[in-house]
Amino acid sequence: MKAIRINLKERSHNLLIGKGLLHSTGRLIRKLNIGKDAFIITNPLIKNKYAKALNDSLKNAGYTARYRLVADTEKSKSIEAAFSIIRELLDYDKGKQVFIIAFGGGVIGDLAGFVASVYKRGVPYLQIPTTLLAQIDSAIGGKTAIDLIQGKNLVGAFYQPRLIVSDTSLLKSLARRQLKAGLSEAIKYGIIKDKALFIFLEKNYPDIFKFKDRQIGFLVYRCSKIKARIIERDEKEKKGLRTILNFGHTLGHAIEAASNFSGYNHGEAIALGMLAAAYISKKMGFVDDALYQRIKNLIKSVGLPTRLKRISIPKIIQAHYKDKKFIGRENRFVLIRGIGKPFVAKNIQLKIIKQALEELK
Amino acid sequence: MKAIRINLKERSHNLLIGKGLLHSTGRLIRKLNIGKDAFIITNPLIKNKYAKALNDSLKNAGYTARYRLVADTEKSKSIEAAFSIIRELLDYDKGKQVFIIAFGGGVIGDLAGFVASVYKRGVPYLQIPTTLLAQIDSAIGGKTAIDLIQGKNLVGAFYQPRLIVSDTSLLKSLARRQLKAGLSEAIKYGIIKDKALFIFLEKNYPDIFKFKDRQIGFLVYRCSKIKARIIERDEKEKKGLRTILNFGHTLGHAIEAASNFSGYNHGEAIALGMLAAAYISKKMGFVDDALYQRIKNLIKSVGLPTRLKRISIPKIIQAHYKDKKFIGRENRFVLIRGIGKPFVAKNIQLKIIKQALEELK
Repeated sequence: MKAIRINLKERSHNLLIGKGLLHSTGRLIRKLNIGKDAFIITNPLIKNKYAKALNDSLKNAGYTARYRLVADTEKSKSIEAAFSIIRELLDYDKGKQVFIIAFGGGVIGDLAGFVASVYKRGVPYLQIPTTLLAQIDSAIGGKTAIDLIQGKNLVGAFYQPRLIVSDTSLLKSLARRQLKAGLSEAIKYGIIKDKALFIFLEKNYPDIFKFKDRQIGFLVYRCSKIKARIIERDEKEKKGLRTILNFGHTLGHAIEAASNFSGYNHGEAIALGMLAAAYISKKMGFVDDALYQRIKNLIKSVGLPTRLKRISIPKIIQAHYKDKKFIGRENRFVLIRGIGKPFVAKNIQLKIIKQALEELK
Repeated sequence: MKAIRINLKERSHNLLIGKGLLHSTGRLIRKLNIGKDAFIITNPLIKNKYAKALNDSLKNAGYTARYRLVADTEKSKSIEAAFSIIRELLDYDKGKQVFIIAFGGGVIGDLAGFVASVYKRGVPYLQIPTTLLAQIDSAIGGKTAIDLIQGKNLVGAFYQPRLIVSDTSLLKSLARRQLKAGLSEAIKYGIIKDKALFIFLEKNYPDIFKFKDRQIGFLVYRCSKIKARIIERDEKEKKGLRTILNFGHTLGHAIEAASNFSGYNHGEAIALGMLAAAYISKKMGFVDDALYQRIKNLIKSVGLPTRLKRISIPKIIQAHYKDKKFIGRENRFVLIRGIGKPFVAKNIQLKIIKQALEELK
């Protein structure tokens, strides 16, 4: 087991990474003093596969457990789902000392974290991420949210979990497409922060698809550490440091929105967004074509999309202008000067944005 | 103008108290760097009376202003109201730098604060409390919430405002019943923390009803300071210090809930709750009958209720057991050993609770 301490003053907590950690969950949370009764938000698939292991672990440590199932699609991040969970929690909570476990991917983490943040003005929660994407990205950093019809993540809170348990053996049951989605964010970390990681991915992606322990373990640890260190320095995305994590996300989110959150999953949309951001960086003279091609090759090698399908560019542009990352009429992009050299640029010309999207056609 | 600094690390902010401060709002918020566009949540009455003064002040300081009206009843603290405001905010927000102003009493403060806490994971907000109750209590401390059918304040956040502007001249337009509701909390501060304040109220309540500046100013400042100092020591009600502010609230909330939040307003219900808590304190031997009678006399003198009307005791008991202040099956009451000597007691016998309520019949 490897431990990463995330230092955030009174909100500090541990992120634990290891094979089979799920079996130790009960023991691991004992010292946290977070309550007695676990309310576990998960999806039917995960429950079928892993509920027994988690239950045994919780019961052996003296906790009770109740499950609430939600579908693992972006549609579950709705007002209705959040308040339906809150009503169930309220019913369960009578005379109890409830804490919440977000047991799933990014959707479940966001939704369960949001519920934990607003239920009775905040109850403790854990993240037990089950996808690569959640383990290396969404479960770390305390961003919780639900979506509105008008856009993703428009309602939420910064609310830190009390512990993150990343059991890498859970990743073995991931569908190939989900694994790729996680690799998209891993590539992002390489591009914005870690040339060695970028090179590791270029060389080792086939072993990751074979779920080789050493490679998977290294990948989760290395990426988690990058995210943790950025969060520590800019927890609430106020200093612009956390902003670099949005590399590929400005147009990535717009592509997701324009496809009504179907068609592309988050990782796929971010892959396209990163390619567009790399293209804009090239077009504005910050990187050369060779680097752009190298990024494109890695994205392609791991089987992520490099071409836009069935979405009109005007629709993406329109979604882009609705993005909450617009601050005071200026658009904002994370661009690069090279691998590991991100920076924030404002007021990128619409013409160049369009060209970047055309390039994906 | 008097200023109270509320020290809460990165959430520290000022509470300003003075006659006519509303006219200085724009100037006062300039140094806060909170955005450019004010989204003001208020009720029609306040808007009619004070919008011009606030608008002039904001515009002179370079801010834009948009109003959103809500009815000033507990029913406005609903999921529907919160999300309807969020949708309007989203529509207004295009290309803007929005901050929120909670301009009203406790309901508007709780609702607007909750919206500010979850909209885009938190935007800055100000409290401009317009009632005595809000100025000395609800606007201070960052407790925000909405109600569910199952109970009050079940969904919310601890989310601090960037500034609190308590303009005491706004209190002159208060209905007598609203002023009394504020006095109920002022009496509470006297009982739990400040014998001099308790004696001040016994002597000066007629001058407060005449809105005499000196007395009103003293009252708001003294009470605000008590609340501010408690908040500083126990922001999130975790150390039990903030808990003493719940004196009278355990049964007060149950009385409110049992009357379906009509019949009694918050201050009236808390007056009854304080009387019941004082009775329990007497019954358990912590205070003598003379002190109980003195508290009862002050409550009666200011015109607050000392008798329960049209609510059945079993209904109050039932509501009491649903209260979120129940932690792990134990009930909790704030009792007193004397004026200024509160303490938390657990597992109060149902029999004594019933007797305390019977005494109010």
